[in-house]
Amino acid sequence: MAQVDEPLSEALLRAEPAAKRRALAKAITLLESTRADHRLRADALLNALLPRTGHSLRLGISGVPGVGKSTFIEVLGLLLIAQGHRVAVLAIDPSSSLSGGSILGDKTRMEQLSVNEAAYIRPSPASGTLGGVAEKTREAMLVCEAAGYDIVIVETVGVGQSEIAVASMTDLFVLLQLPNAGDDLQAIKKGVMELADLVVINKADIDPKAATRAEATIAGSLRAFGGHGVQASAPVRVMQLSALKGQGVAAFWSAVEQTAAARRASGAFDQRRKQQALAWMWDIVHARLLADFHHHPTVREALPATLHDVSDARVTPSSAARALLNLFENS
Amino acid sequence: MAQVDEPLSEALLRAEPAAKRRALAKAITLLESTRADHRLRADALLNALLPRTGHSLRLGISGVPGVGKSTFIEVLGLLLIAQGHRVAVLAIDPSSSLSGGSILGDKTRMEQLSVNEAAYIRPSPASGTLGGVAEKTREAMLVCEAAGYDIVIVETVGVGQSEIAVASMTDLFVLLQLPNAGDDLQAIKKGVMELADLVVINKADIDPKAATRAEATIAGSLRAFGGHGVQASAPVRVMQLSALKGQGVAAFWSAVEQTAAARRASGAFDQRRKQQALAWMWDIVHARLLADFHHHPTVREALPATLHDVSDARVTPSSAARALLNLFENS
Repeated sequence: MAQVDEPLSEALLRAEPAAKRRALAKAITLLESTRADHRLRADALLNALLPRTGHSLRLGISGVPGVGKSTFIEVLGLLLIAQGHRVAVLAIDPSSSLSGGSILGDKTRMEQLSVNEAAYIRPSPASGTLGGVAEKTREAMLVCEAAGYDIVIVETVGVGQSEIAVASMTDLFVLLQLPNAGDDLQAIKKGVMELADLVVINKADIDPKAATRAEATIAGSLRAFGGHGVQASAPVRVMQLSALKGQGVAAFWSAVEQTAAARRASGAFDQRRKQQALAWMWDIVHARLLADFHHHPTVREALPATLHDVSDARVTPSSAARALLNLFENS
Repeated sequence: MAQVDEPLSEALLRAEPAAKRRALAKAITLLESTRADHRLRADALLNALLPRTGHSLRLGISGVPGVGKSTFIEVLGLLLIAQGHRVAVLAIDPSSSLSGGSILGDKTRMEQLSVNEAAYIRPSPASGTLGGVAEKTREAMLVCEAAGYDIVIVETVGVGQSEIAVASMTDLFVLLQLPNAGDDLQAIKKGVMELADLVVINKADIDPKAATRAEATIAGSLRAFGGHGVQASAPVRVMQLSALKGQGVAAFWSAVEQTAAARRASGAFDQRRKQQALAWMWDIVHARLLADFHHHPTVREALPATLHDVSDARVTPSSAARALLNLFENS
């Protein structure tokens, strides 16, 4: 195991705010690196920091483009800082591996929050599979916690898989909806409504009647489909607000705190954390086992012909699978 | 590789109808066996039969209990036999591993079809995971095809995962719906509507108005959500019928034939078959890789302590994963 990077670890835990933010950026860059020696150092750092992690409230936020996520996070973040919290904002951008850059966590979209000393905003890791991006973000979350951020917000857009990833690494998953019909059906269809612990209808000021209709529809859908909630007894809250006008954001935070407190009291909060840690471990194990198979030289050599044989129905898929597994195990 | 079971292979390909059905039952029992020597014989048999497979139309049928699947399949099967087809009916019952027996493909529910010489009805494999049951059913489908059945129907109930399995092994996936509100929303929610190539509202005779409403709602949902269809250009057909009264079943079959013909012409039909064969192969490979890891003696020994460390946050999930993988690879 590599040596712990003492100066970096020290700076994360004890430096002045500005130096701490620089150390944080450096640490996250280290754990996003694909170099093997960086990975060893990142692992050592994470394990050293581990006892200082886990004390934040982890909040996942999703919603389709245009729902107003940046404004909502900016307003919420400033409110939390005014209450004495320190807020980190991370992002998982499922399109980043295509676009080569991040469209989320863009500091220019959170003007006041990004320059606030009590906030740290980090865009999505810029490359890799969703699984890889999610793993880096989970690790970045731990580093932020060790550096004293007690609220970690993980933001994503509404594309199903990335929302599952965010819900699986946060304590509460918030779905932002627009006050118009159809948005809720899309969320139900994609199974995202099932992930939500709180549903927020943003931009309610634009059309209060539509927002109230949307609230009733969503509440009805959640009742009909038994929107999960970690506790079956706690129904999923649906609320309206206007982030732009700052209306309802404080009430939203009260709802978050109430839900979190109820879950801590029942033990559901810790239970979810434990399950998430174990699921995360298995994700990594499974991804690596499959990657090892796909990179195995003999398997790679045999694969093109095997794929042809299977797709042209010259060999059954089961026989082909067994033959490839034999190559993997015996060569 | 084991010797091909010549008499069984011969009987499947050339025997008289009654003897062929007995050989078919014997072959499927062989491939459902968990004995290693049986598996080798089953593999050899499947590969020998492979050139004779693939010539059927594979039709998946799903719907909630009470939607009338058995009656529909009985009426459809008899119609197809009257047209000169030979019809095999297989089932995937996701509850069979719990109940210890199959609730589907029950011959007593298809009284006339089950005694017809041109039909073969086989209940769901009685045990195993859904993945295992699905694999046996895929193989049974190949044996039925080699034995000359030119229509293979695979039936399941509406529980999401089993419907994905059936859609992934058939050429066309038909969703049976009841003529009442809510059924369609459930199907949308579970993502099953997306799998459907044809949606059939059964029992339309009971309440024609409700059936027409349901048809309009479903067609609307499919338009809104862009119900897939292998070809984006071909919209998913929605139709009403009454299997019990025999109304609309012939029209349903025409729709199936038209859809299949259009897909054959465009190449989409073969493309789906090839993709299914490859996905099937990867399913088997991945399941086996994970099973090997979980059964590895050193991994099993280290696992309890590792799980504790991870869930109590003493080790990061990534470090724990790497440690387990090291044990797996180096011991």
